[in-house]
Amino acid sequence: MMKGKVLIAQGGGPTAVINESLVGAVLAARKLKGVAGVYGAFHGVRGIVDEDFIDLGKEPKANLERVAKTPCSALGSTRDKPDLKYCRSIFAVLKAHGVGSFFYIGGNDSSDTLRILADEARKARYALTCVHIPKTIDNDLMANDHTPGYPSAARFVAGAFAGANLDNRALPGVYVGVVMGRHAGFLTAAAALGRKYPDDGPHLIYLPERDFVMDRFLADVTAAWAKHGRCVIAVSEGIHDATGEPIAATLAKQIEKDAHGNVQLSGSGALADLLCDSIRANTSIKRVRGDTFGYLQRSFLGCVSDVDQKEARAVGVKAVQFAARTGRDGSVAIRRRKGKRYAAELNFVALADVAGRTRVMPAAFIARSGTDVTKAFDDYLRPLVGSRIPETFRLSAPKVRKILDKKK
Amino acid sequence: MMKGKVLIAQGGGPTAVINESLVGAVLAARKLKGVAGVYGAFHGVRGIVDEDFIDLGKEPKANLERVAKTPCSALGSTRDKPDLKYCRSIFAVLKAHGVGSFFYIGGNDSSDTLRILADEARKARYALTCVHIPKTIDNDLMANDHTPGYPSAARFVAGAFAGANLDNRALPGVYVGVVMGRHAGFLTAAAALGRKYPDDGPHLIYLPERDFVMDRFLADVTAAWAKHGRCVIAVSEGIHDATGEPIAATLAKQIEKDAHGNVQLSGSGALADLLCDSIRANTSIKRVRGDTFGYLQRSFLGCVSDVDQKEARAVGVKAVQFAARTGRDGSVAIRRRKGKRYAAELNFVALADVAGRTRVMPAAFIARSGTDVTKAFDDYLRPLVGSRIPETFRLSAPKVRKILDKKK
Repeated sequence: MMKGKVLIAQGGGPTAVINESLVGAVLAARKLKGVAGVYGAFHGVRGIVDEDFIDLGKEPKANLERVAKTPCSALGSTRDKPDLKYCRSIFAVLKAHGVGSFFYIGGNDSSDTLRILADEARKARYALTCVHIPKTIDNDLMANDHTPGYPSAARFVAGAFAGANLDNRALPGVYVGVVMGRHAGFLTAAAALGRKYPDDGPHLIYLPERDFVMDRFLADVTAAWAKHGRCVIAVSEGIHDATGEPIAATLAKQIEKDAHGNVQLSGSGALADLLCDSIRANTSIKRVRGDTFGYLQRSFLGCVSDVDQKEARAVGVKAVQFAARTGRDGSVAIRRRKGKRYAAELNFVALADVAGRTRVMPAAFIARSGTDVTKAFDDYLRPLVGSRIPETFRLSAPKVRKILDKKK
Repeated sequence: MMKGKVLIAQGGGPTAVINESLVGAVLAARKLKGVAGVYGAFHGVRGIVDEDFIDLGKEPKANLERVAKTPCSALGSTRDKPDLKYCRSIFAVLKAHGVGSFFYIGGNDSSDTLRILADEARKARYALTCVHIPKTIDNDLMANDHTPGYPSAARFVAGAFAGANLDNRALPGVYVGVVMGRHAGFLTAAAALGRKYPDDGPHLIYLPERDFVMDRFLADVTAAWAKHGRCVIAVSEGIHDATGEPIAATLAKQIEKDAHGNVQLSGSGALADLLCDSIRANTSIKRVRGDTFGYLQRSFLGCVSDVDQKEARAVGVKAVQFAARTGRDGSVAIRRRKGKRYAAELNFVALADVAGRTRVMPAAFIARSGTDVTKAFDDYLRPLVGSRIPETFRLSAPKVRKILDKKK
């Protein structure tokens, strides 16, 4: 039984399916007896402080369904992380509007915001149920097999590398693609799903779960080049050296030291460019190209996993149902059922199990070389990326026997 | 009536539909009487010199159909541009294998290669029919309404900006997306197709058809920021100053002069990063992000226009049919029929009409501001990008009246 109004908001980076969770929660809340209204806050907790609400009880169902299929937080998002003072402003607004439960769709930071909010509400004796609805393309939430948003982003990364591999095969050279994921390599690892033939790229995958050593990288590239006459490389933006310092920062420092230049590194194409420069400077390879997938991998219109869509909807619905049944704070978590056929179940876990913690790739998903993934990872990801994945094909006819060569 | 063997090759940058043209030409050639065989050369003219042929007469039809749906030159590509000596090597190989006609799928450079080859063949009294089959994501071939490959790339760019706009609306800031196209702005202009609502981005579009002035750019961004509280910008990689010098090069020089840094500009993320740096340095806007779409826009697996697919197939078929009927050298060109409903027809034009020349956007497609496109461009592009384009939707419910604000 839920009391008062239900408030829903979205925090952190958008995903392709985050509005499925929003619409799932809205429709589930609208069905509940006792709920005095369903509001949405614009731009996450910032919208609460600003009293910037939309009356989602009045949103036509048909439009909600259309919004559900639209990528990126329809309510807008924020990176704000409330402190005590911020929490007090939030409570003042929630109290004024009679909000009894708050559903926050987000990642680690958003779940931590909820944990702080729930703690402060308890101290302030303010009756508030705080529920976290998971999303993140980084796939780095504890207690979850995977998180909504990740499968669609993984589908994008796999499609991007499948295409880049074909492009690189047509015009051979070295190709470096930099993928999002500061601490966890799940999204970068998805590049492996773009492979079909044994010599397909990515030939090398660099994850933040392993220390990056430039000399070893250059040796790896040279070896792959010698083997394939080309080389496709997937790199996580979060790769770092043995001291934990990001490679992007290390390379930036070198440039700064050399040149006092003003090269931007975060949210830019610099890491790809700097790795390409290193390859050019230290090998004889001439054609070296780098791309940074950037915001496309989380927002591109028209690349979505149908499995992800369904699960994102389900976590939104379940969050409301769990809260209504238990009256407790918590987070919805996706668990995978054992068995050959993929199936997921949703559990309700404590906020502390998720909040502010980061899950990285288990060792079983990373090849011993440190530059590839294992079959276990492939088995893990493949059922998530959805149906109707395009397949690549090659010509298979025999080669023509050389005539002039014979005369030589 | 065609004599001898038919040879087909692919040159220049790959596209999403270039194999449709290949398969169209192969299947049409296999049907012709008198044709002694259908060969493919690997990596364009390079494969001729190297005698690196595949017997496409033996390729199973079912596999050809699968390859047709796979993006990026299945035969591989090249950037080689033959000189006289190179041409002689080509003739020696063609003669040895009894090749009577050569079909080259490519852009400006490939058509110019054919023109040179045809000229040299005439001088050498070597009987060779040279036929160009158009492709280029840049859409910059003369004599064509548009070129195969462009509509699919335009679909990618439109989808990328539609998503980037939603992302930017969720987390407001400035977003710069750099699009391919060194001389022609057609692909960058496609960003406009990602818009639906009046305040949707891209709010500014910078094309190589107009001189780029940094101060005006900064003023444009500041004005858009003031109006929308955010700003999405589409920039062609080919933007240049009034002297024709690429902005990427200008900014690089500044950095070099300042710092002797080694910043890579071509095929890198540098232009986006440098424009972002300029915005940060000269405005008070804090959240500034830049992406360079890079190779994804021409090779991404799973983004294709069905109109483009059909037309790419048709130009391949028609090239063979025109050559068989006329025995002449030439290029297939797409013309748009007059009338309300989109329809295209294929013509056979002289190689000289296309070879080595560059078409840019007509003035009627560019808004008077110089930073947007016109309705005429929208009307031009919309029928090309194909069916099942995802649409974006927004929440429409009323805002909740503020309670605490009223008490103030």
